Amino acid sequence: MAEKILLKGNEAMVEAAIEAKCRFFAGYPITPQNEVPETMARRMPQVGGTFIQAESELAAINMIFGASAAGARCMTSSSSPGISLKLEGISYIAAAELPCVIANVQRGGPGLGNIRAAQGDYFQAVKGGGHGDYRLIVLAPAGVQELYDLTMKAFDWADLYRNPVLMLGDGLLGQTAEPVVKKKYRPACKLPKKDWALTGCTNRKSNVVKTLMLGSVEALADHNRHLVQKYKKIESELSLVEEYMTDDAELIVSGYGMTARIAKGAVKNARAKGLKVGLIRPISVWPFPTDTFKRAAEKADKFLVVEMSNGQFVEDVKLAIECKKPVEFMGVGGGWYPTPENVLEKIETVLGG
Amino acid sequence: MAEKILLKGNEAMVEAAIEAKCRFFAGYPITPQNEVPETMARRMPQVGGTFIQAESELAAINMIFGASAAGARCMTSSSSPGISLKLEGISYIAAAELPCVIANVQRGGPGLGNIRAAQGDYFQAVKGGGHGDYRLIVLAPAGVQELYDLTMKAFDWADLYRNPVLMLGDGLLGQTAEPVVKKKYRPACKLPKKDWALTGCTNRKSNVVKTLMLGSVEALADHNRHLVQKYKKIESELSLVEEYMTDDAELIVSGYGMTARIAKGAVKNARAKGLKVGLIRPISVWPFPTDTFKRAAEKADKFLVVEMSNGQFVEDVKLAIECKKPVEFMGVGGGWYPTPENVLEKIETVLGG
Amino acid sequence: MAEKILLKGNEAMVEAAIEAKCRFFAGYPITPQNEVPETMARRMPQVGGTFIQAESELAAINMIFGASAAGARCMTSSSSPGISLKLEGISYIAAAELPCVIANVQRGGPGLGNIRAAQGDYFQAVKGGGHGDYRLIVLAPAGVQELYDLTMKAFDWADLYRNPVLMLGDGLLGQTAEPVVKKKYRPACKLPKKDWALTGCTNRKSNVVKTLMLGSVEALADHNRHLVQKYKKIESELSLVEEYMTDDAELIVSGYGMTARIAKGAVKNARAKGLKVGLIRPISVWPFPTDTFKRAAEKADKFLVVEMSNGQFVEDVKLAIECKKPVEFMGVGGGWYPTPENVLEKIETVLGG
Amino acid sequence: MAEKILLKGNEAMVEAAIEAKCRFFAGYPITPQNEVPETMARRMPQVGGTFIQAESELAAINMIFGASAAGARCMTSSSSPGISLKLEGISYIAAAELPCVIANVQRGGPGLGNIRAAQGDYFQAVKGGGHGDYRLIVLAPAGVQELYDLTMKAFDWADLYRNPVLMLGDGLLGQTAEPVVKKKYRPACKLPKKDWALTGCTNRKSNVVKTLMLGSVEALADHNRHLVQKYKKIESELSLVEEYMTDDAELIVSGYGMTARIAKGAVKNARAKGLKVGLIRPISVWPFPTDTFKRAAEKADKFLVVEMSNGQFVEDVKLAIECKKPVEFMGVGGGWYPTPENVLEKIETVLGG
Repeated sequence: MAEKILLKGNEAMVEAAIEAKCRFFAGYPITPQNEVPETMARRMPQVGGTFIQAESELAAINMIFGASAAGARCMTSSSSPGISLKLEGISYIAAAELPCVIANVQRGGPGLGNIRAAQGDYFQAVKGGGHGDYRLIVLAPAGVQELYDLTMKAFDWADLYRNPVLMLGDGLLGQTAEPVVKKKYRPACKLPKKDWALTGCTNRKSNVVKTLMLGSVEALADHNRHLVQKYKKIESELSLVEEYMTDDAELIVSGYGMTARIAKGAVKNARAKGLKVGLIRPISVWPFPTDTFKRAAEKADKFLVVEMSNGQFVEDVKLAIECKKPVEFMGVGGGWYPTPENVLEKIETVLGG
Repeated sequence: MAEKILLKGNEAMVEAAIEAKCRFFAGYPITPQNEVPETMARRMPQVGGTFIQAESELAAINMIFGASAAGARCMTSSSSPGISLKLEGISYIAAAELPCVIANVQRGGPGLGNIRAAQGDYFQAVKGGGHGDYRLIVLAPAGVQELYDLTMKAFDWADLYRNPVLMLGDGLLGQTAEPVVKKKYRPACKLPKKDWALTGCTNRKSNVVKTLMLGSVEALADHNRHLVQKYKKIESELSLVEEYMTDDAELIVSGYGMTARIAKGAVKNARAKGLKVGLIRPISVWPFPTDTFKRAAEKADKFLVVEMSNGQFVEDVKLAIECKKPVEFMGVGGGWYPTPENVLEKIETVLGG
Repeated sequence: MAEKILLKGNEAMVEAAIEAKCRFFAGYPITPQNEVPETMARRMPQVGGTFIQAESELAAINMIFGASAAGARCMTSSSSPGISLKLEGISYIAAAELPCVIANVQRGGPGLGNIRAAQGDYFQAVKGGGHGDYRLIVLAPAGVQELYDLTMKAFDWADLYRNPVLMLGDGLLGQTAEPVVKKKYRPACKLPKKDWALTGCTNRKSNVVKTLMLGSVEALADHNRHLVQKYKKIESELSLVEEYMTDDAELIVSGYGMTARIAKGAVKNARAKGLKVGLIRPISVWPFPTDTFKRAAEKADKFLVVEMSNGQFVEDVKLAIECKKPVEFMGVGGGWYPTPENVLEKIETVLGG
Repeated sequence: MAEKILLKGNEAMVEAAIEAKCRFFAGYPITPQNEVPETMARRMPQVGGTFIQAESELAAINMIFGASAAGARCMTSSSSPGISLKLEGISYIAAAELPCVIANVQRGGPGLGNIRAAQGDYFQAVKGGGHGDYRLIVLAPAGVQELYDLTMKAFDWADLYRNPVLMLGDGLLGQTAEPVVKKKYRPACKLPKKDWALTGCTNRKSNVVKTLMLGSVEALADHNRHLVQKYKKIESELSLVEEYMTDDAELIVSGYGMTARIAKGAVKNARAKGLKVGLIRPISVWPFPTDTFKRAAEKADKFLVVEMSNGQFVEDVKLAIECKKPVEFMGVGGGWYPTPENVLEKIETVLGG
């Protein structure tokens, strides 16, 4: 039987990355993600990898650009304000179609805010916080084991689509310790050759990795058309979602990450009380599991979205169901989080309403 | 009769800012907004103001934090990648509720992209590119005179709501020269006293400007509740929109900024051909003029959104009309822009469809 | 009779600079010089000048390069580690022959050290801590009034020779408050026109300020020959020194700045005891008052150098007197300083030896 | 017989470092030392070492602080302006008594200057360009083989004395390719255990590496006393010098590095003409081989110093011989260098004078 070990979310992410052959990490400290660089600093040298405590968030993300351009499996992580500092670099990496994994262990905002868990960076993550029309693949695990499993796959999907993958967690997920079954790395897909990488050019045509596209007037528009096609392909192939008791549900509760897990507890309790409630939890928030929501909207009467923010994810739910059913919202930013009891109470209000 | 002078959009923004008593500008050069710092460098000393060519985009935005905290009317500007670099600072300024004006003269993205006009930073502007649940007031003028007029008001609204205002232009608007009637500055509203400013504390209680809210567990959530109330107030009071021939329109064309101006040309030509087409052009894209769209959706059959991007603003149109009518999209990112003929052709296709 | 006001050394420097028409200051905080930026921040706006709290020491010194190139009277200040950070910029300013005043309020070193007074940066100041063969004019006042008077002149000499002037103080001088007679600024010399400044080029030949001299193979060597000539001229014209009872002295005590002042107390006490002791205190340490030392070496038997360092200034004394008389040394770096009693004791030992 | 390979000076330095088990290099590009980071970038991964192209000179030197504090053999390199930028860090490393090797491949200065060979950074190297009373061990090889041999030893001496070692070369030495016999690394001395290093603290007392010494009032002065003792020990143990035909010389020519090699050619030609001329070439310029000069001064009548600068090393020659014999100087900064013919001519003038 597989051995379970107790790991904090932040630590599990590191172990998964190392197991998935990530060998380059550059980062800068910020609470509540500090166990990521701390653990990377210890683990990377053990496997012949490189850990760099960069001089700034900007330095870190640009080192990731460089490492990825050179063909390395690489990762960086931070928390909300640190991710904001990385956004220029993230746009560059997405533009250059470089694979990498970025973790955002969200904290309370805006500004310096506080170090409690929050989900105020959803728009930044899925709509493109940086400039230009790029997309990140955004994964939002709801527990340490899932975080471990998805982090491993994140590297494969990043390589498959030549696109950055963002692990969208929060302080709760990062700091919670849970038993984890460590797994042998097996690629989640057939990995393409990195024949575009800057590996030192001998006996081949020179590779170029760039984001400045001056050439012809249409060069950059064409690149955007190409990106749009790629993003459509990702949307059609990679959409992850958990559905729970939605078949006969009159009310669908939704949320992502740790909030959805809390909400699931409420849904269970509601069912125990005989209320017809189900849950949809997007595991990938981009691509968004639109079809699942669409199907659910045909049967359910109402939706309830719970977020640790002032309301961001709720917009994507409305767009997914084309506003065909009313969508209630429950949430506050800045470190507030709901209990199963809070959510159950809200469920009863909404159903009663 | 008022004298007209020929000004590029970038220059008009500066003249309006100076006229509106802006006396502090910090920026960093990037095409296609370079006339802003260049003109500021010449004009500020003439009026006893301060121009700083900062050492980086980060330095510039943090100087704005400081100047605004000290009570100065202040401004910075940049173009897409430069705005990404400023996002941490923008989140801080919004969190601290400091008034300032920020201009984004958008260029083609993602990455370094090119220096042509584009509208790929819409999500970043209106959904909060930086971390946390903050909002910017975002104004999107469609000509140099409107840019001039709105820039003046931007400073007043920033002061009124203690909130950063983003002037969302693009390379076309910034580089186009048009005749402008210069106006005497008259406040657009009754301006509140800046009794929160750090002006040197004598004979009064000390002021504190901060974004780190550790204190009680609820301190930051309460601050978010306060911000949500403020944003609702702004939404109820400040929504700017141009409507053109929407009364009997079967098709509503929409867009913002220079794209909307091009689209308006197409709408005129369509009307000349007897097609029942109208235009809604949000002048403020946050707050979004939802009511105008809602009313139009009751009568019109279809919507067509035109953007110089792969599709961002189109989401807000769908949300505004609650997906009650089909919304077609026309747009490509990276420096592509439509001609009135392109748009007319698309109008005919959509109406024929 | 002139009014006296009580000023700390750091404050006196600011008042003198303002009186001497310095209108641009850029700096970064570090103890024990913090009163300089603090006072500048308050005083500059009162006189229509500009104070910039720069983002780093590097930013500050490069802003000085820019302000001086534009023709402004300008100043920066720091303490030991901060001056090290400025050395690339100082070399550039000296190479470009730009006038400015730089203050080093020395603290204990090496490294972060401590915040006590020290004189460990003498070599850095007079031998050229930065790269290349440049020279700074280095003034070392021994009291607040002298600091006030010399700071005013420093701006004139900087302009006259188009060369940076370094005010070499220490934490003791910066923190000590003494009565100061404020004086009306009267130029210390006929000031040359700044016809080389980058003031915006209209109806004249374009000015160029640069430090990269690629042109011909000999361009930079010729520039060095020119600098050597300029430095010789400065050495012949600008050498400041205080002599005290050296005529019949058997022992000459020497030192600079506050140490020399302490030593002077010891010399007085020695004279009171009938010991034939005198003092030479260079006020300019570059140019070094070589002739005064040379003349003294013809009569005196011995020299004693006192420094708040492990021994740096002592080398220039030996070179000045061409090692013709024995030179004893008394000093420790890192925040140690002598009392008049210590020095008297040492005088007695040396004379007795 | 040992195999010779052709290496540029910059390349030889890298090969020696790698052979001497240096496994960490952080640097930033600047001509004429670019082959150092370029070669390090290729070679380090081959031996399991780490190469970092840092974001700035400041980042590079502070990474060296970190790597050395962690016990790694580490190196950085730059050229004149880049070394100026590193001086704060160098002072910190010297204060913390951390071993490392720093190369300065000098170029013409001051300012950006040019990229020709020069020796304008002598004072910076030997007198302490950074703040505080620290010393670097400074080695000045005159050929590629010697550069190779000394670089290997530099790491040992750095470890032995826990002190940074500066390889003081110039563009000529860095760019010249000469045949080099590669040697197996054999420690130049018994190497002490790095029991002070921050290796992760288990079962031992915690190590602390610091440069801020607040504690007691005397803490930093005591640290300076300790450093002075250490520097005296180094001076007594480590002084390297080449003497050539000094026994009967009436004139001693002196210089260091490539200039001394050129001068040696002139000395040979002078001997061929029957002139009684010798050469002293310090190989370590700190510690300075004072005794060799002192002995020579007892017999020779005159000295001639040749430098690629306006005159810096010449001061140390005067101090070493206590000005007992006249010292002539030949040199210009900024990329000038002498030919053997120039020097011979000067020798004849001096001897004839």
